[in-house]
Formats: sequence, structure tokens, C-alpha cells
Amino acid sequence: VSAPVLGWDVGGANLKAVQVRGGEPAGTVEDPFPLWREPQRLPERLAAIAARLGGARRMGVTMTAELADCFASKREGVASVLDAFGRAFPGAEVRVFGVDGRFRSPAEARRDPHAVAAANWAATAHALAARHPDALLVDVGSTTTDVIPVVGGRVAAAGLTDPARLRTGELVYTGALRTPVCATLRRVRLANGWTRVAAEHFAIAADAHLWLGRIPPAEYTCEPPDGRGTSRAEVAARLARVVCADPEMLAPGDLTRIARAVWSAQCRQITAAIRQVLRRLGPAAPRLALVAGRGGELAREAAHGAGLEVLPLDPEGALAAPAAAVALLLAEEPQGGA
Amino acid sequence: VSAPVLGWDVGGANLKAVQVRGGEPAGTVEDPFPLWREPQRLPERLAAIAARLGGARRMGVTMTAELADCFASKREGVASVLDAFGRAFPGAEVRVFGVDGRFRSPAEARRDPHAVAAANWAATAHALAARHPDALLVDVGSTTTDVIPVVGGRVAAAGLTDPARLRTGELVYTGALRTPVCATLRRVRLANGWTRVAAEHFAIAADAHLWLGRIPPAEYTCEPPDGRGTSRAEVAARLARVVCADPEMLAPGDLTRIARAVWSAQCRQITAAIRQVLRRLGPAAPRLALVAGRGGELAREAAHGAGLEVLPLDPEGALAAPAAAVALLLAEEPQGGA
Repeated sequence: VSAPVLGWDVGGANLKAVQVRGGEPAGTVEDPFPLWREPQRLPERLAAIAARLGGARRMGVTMTAELADCFASKREGVASVLDAFGRAFPGAEVRVFGVDGRFRSPAEARRDPHAVAAANWAATAHALAARHPDALLVDVGSTTTDVIPVVGGRVAAAGLTDPARLRTGELVYTGALRTPVCATLRRVRLANGWTRVAAEHFAIAADAHLWLGRIPPAEYTCEPPDGRGTSRAEVAARLARVVCADPEMLAPGDLTRIARAVWSAQCRQITAAIRQVLRRLGPAAPRLALVAGRGGELAREAAHGAGLEVLPLDPEGALAAPAAAVALLLAEEPQGGA
Repeated sequence: VSAPVLGWDVGGANLKAVQVRGGEPAGTVEDPFPLWREPQRLPERLAAIAARLGGARRMGVTMTAELADCFASKREGVASVLDAFGRAFPGAEVRVFGVDGRFRSPAEARRDPHAVAAANWAATAHALAARHPDALLVDVGSTTTDVIPVVGGRVAAAGLTDPARLRTGELVYTGALRTPVCATLRRVRLANGWTRVAAEHFAIAADAHLWLGRIPPAEYTCEPPDGRGTSRAEVAARLARVVCADPEMLAPGDLTRIARAVWSAQCRQITAAIRQVLRRLGPAAPRLALVAGRGGELAREAAHGAGLEVLPLDPEGALAAPAAAVALLLAEEPQGGA
């Protein structure tokens, strides 16, 4: 009776799919895929991921890939992603989750692309609201952070589109891996004083987090900006380049100063966003943060900084993953055609 | 008697050569070349540029290309650039300008790469000091800005290496074209309030400057981040993406608000650096700024902001170009060995 359902989170840099069976996540595949570089290969990548999970006839989809700059507009991006699903899974029932919390057919989604653009947070939020009636989700992903309030069992987000969410503090464009250091720091205090940083894509958050031992090399799953590796020496070269230096030109401890400055700046950004969301909610604001994502430790520190109690959302991260959330939500939907 | 001399400025994103004949610049070639993508093609590009200028037996070289992240270290970068000159011009006398104001042979330069790394500002400064004994050069290039004091006819720079210059305010990593918007703005005030920006390489200074009419499309000589064109619609799409939007999602005037915010932030950064340099020099600080470079207007506004009188360095920009400066300096040197 419980046929498997696949949930998809199609990002601009990552593809993620979760298989749900009998109301429980039963398998996950995550695949780093820089969509903006070869969008035409999306159908084959989707098909390969589905094959690894054993396939499914029903699929729930969320996406952020439509923002990738290989698309001229979100309308074009949404259509292109849905085309890819059509080509990869001609027989499947594909349902697209919207920021209003309901599923649409691909045809409906194409007609109203802004309703399904960047709706992955909404999938997580709606799945969460059923289980944690009063909580603030702080989900630090590889690239962005969601700060989503649930109040009285309802999703209490004030922003629905990405630009609105950037305004309300519900979306912070900082994450555990891909964030350029130059977007994080304007200056850094080294052994011999404050130094400006290079406005160049020389190093990313993953370099800082790896240098600090916050992530192991195996979790550095995105491509380093210089296309090299993730050894200490290679990471050091990238961090030094942030101030236009080689490691040998810096004082002992300077690389750690740069890495810590990145971590602290990201933490402050997230704390400020949490405070903004709590302020808006006033007395109804939740006192508990559920932290999740690859940057769970960053989420924890930022939530503590805003004076919240902190719990990990769930150790397996099943709910935090929009791909799992959209599969669970679809599995709960009455079945039937688009 | 006055054989031509070629001066070179080998950057990570641009190649520039100036021919000097009889003590005067006689020809210039500028060639956008993303070195980090195909460093192996440097020799042929150098040879093609020299051929367009009619060649020369003596060549002065400055570089910043060694910072490009296709090189593991500045040592490797300097050696690789000098290898390219060796292959492109086997018969020529190549002299490499150093931050201490003197020329070196390629062999000497290889032994002491930090002395010749990022010395292009020094070429300009030394050529300038002979002509303007008390002035502050504010040279806003495509990627970076130099703020170089000349006091009593001598170069009064406090920093010699790039990291030191980023500390002293003599180097600001912001420019008229290539600067990522995400390295410039953390938030922007739109019609409906302050909005965070995407930490993603979606738009660059050239988009903002073009949108404001500060540069014509023909001066947008670097590659747009999304690989598209420089029409108003394409520029608008990139600027909107800065807040994760399509242009249609924004209020009238929002794109101009984003572009102005970029311009103002760059201007403030440069003004702050100018103030830092003037503060250090105390009563000896020059009262006159000589503005130069592709971002001459930005330089002018920033220098005004710091309370300086402003003059364009020279209408042809001959002195401001390190490639011209190094050629003039070499032409004044006694000839002879490596």
C-alpha cells in the first residue's frame, strides 16, 4: 500500500533526493552538481540519482536552482528544471511544492513560477510545524541559512519570496561551505594590525571552517575556488591569498585569525537575522532554536548568541532536508492526478 | 639612437603593453586575458601584443599576475610569468621592476620573487615622483585602487608588499569593473526597506557603473559573471539577482538604488584609505590628488570626499599606466647587461 515517494531539492550547486517509504525516510542521495555550468546535463543526473534510490512513481519537487545565472529569469529557470524532470521521468507523477504550502502540477508551476521558486524552506517549515509547534528553525546549509519561525503549530514566516526573506531575516545568504570570504570580511585583524581583504573569489567558508577543524576534509564537498585540493597547505594558500599573501609572508597565527574572523562574521550575521525575526514576533516569539544543516555548529553558536535555547532538529537531519520534507508532505497528500 | 622600449603590466585579468620611443609613449595595447584560466597561453598572447606594437629589443616588466590562483605561490607565479617572456622573446633584454625602484634581471627576479611581485604601483610611483613632487596618486583600475603618496619628490609609500599595502591603505581591492557586488555591499536599502544581499558572484562593479551611465557598454571589457551581454536588460537581470530577484519583482528605482549603493560603498572605501594615508603623513601630507585609471570619476569623488584638491593625472593616462611608467623608467636607464 505504501509505494515509495521521492522528494527532490534541486539547488544551483547541489542535487538532493530522499526516498520516503511508509512515512519514513528510507534513503538519501546528495550530488554536488554545478548546474550553471552544464544545465543541459540535469536530466541525466536526476535519472541517475533516482536509479540509485530505486525509483518511484510519485515525486515531490522543491527548487532553488531557478536563481542560477544560466537562466535569464526565474520563469525560465523553473521551466527548465521542470523540463528536466519531464525528460528524466516521463511516466512519473511530479508535484511541485509552493511557498503557500500546497502542491502544484508542473503545468500550474510553469504558469506561476514565483509561487514555486525557492520554496525549499517552505517544505521544511511545513513538515516541521506538524512536529514542533513553537520553535525557530535555524538551518545553515552549504550556501544559505534559513531562519523560520513556527508559532502555535503554524509557519509564521513573513517573507515568501527570496528577496522578501532577505529583508525579513528569514534568509541569510551565508553558509558552511560555498560563501566567498570576500563577501564575509571587509577587513581582518592580523598580528601586525587591521588589513583590508581582496575582493576576489580566493577562498570560501569551507577553507575557514576546515582550517579551524570545524569540518573534516571529507565534508569539503564543493569545488575550491582555485580548483586545487583540501590539504592543509592548499587551504593555507587560499586563506593567505585573502590578504594577497603567501602563507610564508604571514605571522604565526595569522591564518587562524583570518579563519576565525570568517566564522565570527558569519555567526554575527546569523545572530542579527535571528534577532530580527524574534523582534517581529514579539511576545509570541519561540524561545527554542532547532538547529540543522551542514553548518549546525554555526547555527548553534548563532542561536546561543541571540539568547535562545538550542536543540538539534534531529540527529539524522531528516526533517531539516527539504528533499525529505517534500517527500513526507507528498506521502501525506491524497493521491491522484495532475 | 632612441630604439623603442616596451613596457609590460602583466595582470591576472589584463595584459597591457606600451611602446616608448624618444622618451614618449608611442603606442598602447590592452588585452583582457583571464590568465588563471589558461596560463599556458601567456607566451603567445605576449608575442601577439608585441607584434602589434612593432616589437622591441628592450623590455621592462611589472606584474601582479603572480597572485592569480592558478599559481600555488608568488614564487611559482613570478617564475611562470618570466618563463613566458623567455619563450615569447628569446632574443630580448628583459628587465623586471622591483618595489624598491630598481630593475632586476629575470634570474635575480626569480631568486627574490617578493621584490618584483605586485610592483606595478611602484613603477607608476617612481615615474610620477620625477614629475609631481608633492601629490597623492589615486589610481582606480578595473580591479584595485592604488593610493600612493609622493612627498618632496620621493615615493613616500609605507607598504611594499600587497599585504602591507592593504594594511596601510595604499592598496584598496576595489575597482571600476571586476569588483564583485557581494564584496562591496552587505545590505541595500530598497523601496520597501533594507535587504540583505546574496553572497554569490552574481554582479560586478561594471554592472552598477554601466547602469548609472558612468561607463558606456564599450568600456565593460571584462566578462560578465553570467557570461551574458551588456544590454540594459542583461545588466538589470544581474543587478536584480544581487537580492535574489528578477527585475519584475522589484519596485521602480530599486535597480538604481542597488547600483548607487555599490558606487557609494566603493567611494567610501577609497576615501577611508586616502584619509588613512594622509593621517600617517601628518603635516607633510600632499593637498593635491592626481586621479587616474578607468575609475577616474570614482577616484575624483573619493578624493573630494577626503578634502583634497583634484587634478586628472594626465588626459592620456600615460603616466598612470604602469606599463608606460616601466617603459619610461627603463628608457632612462643606462643600457647594458642582464
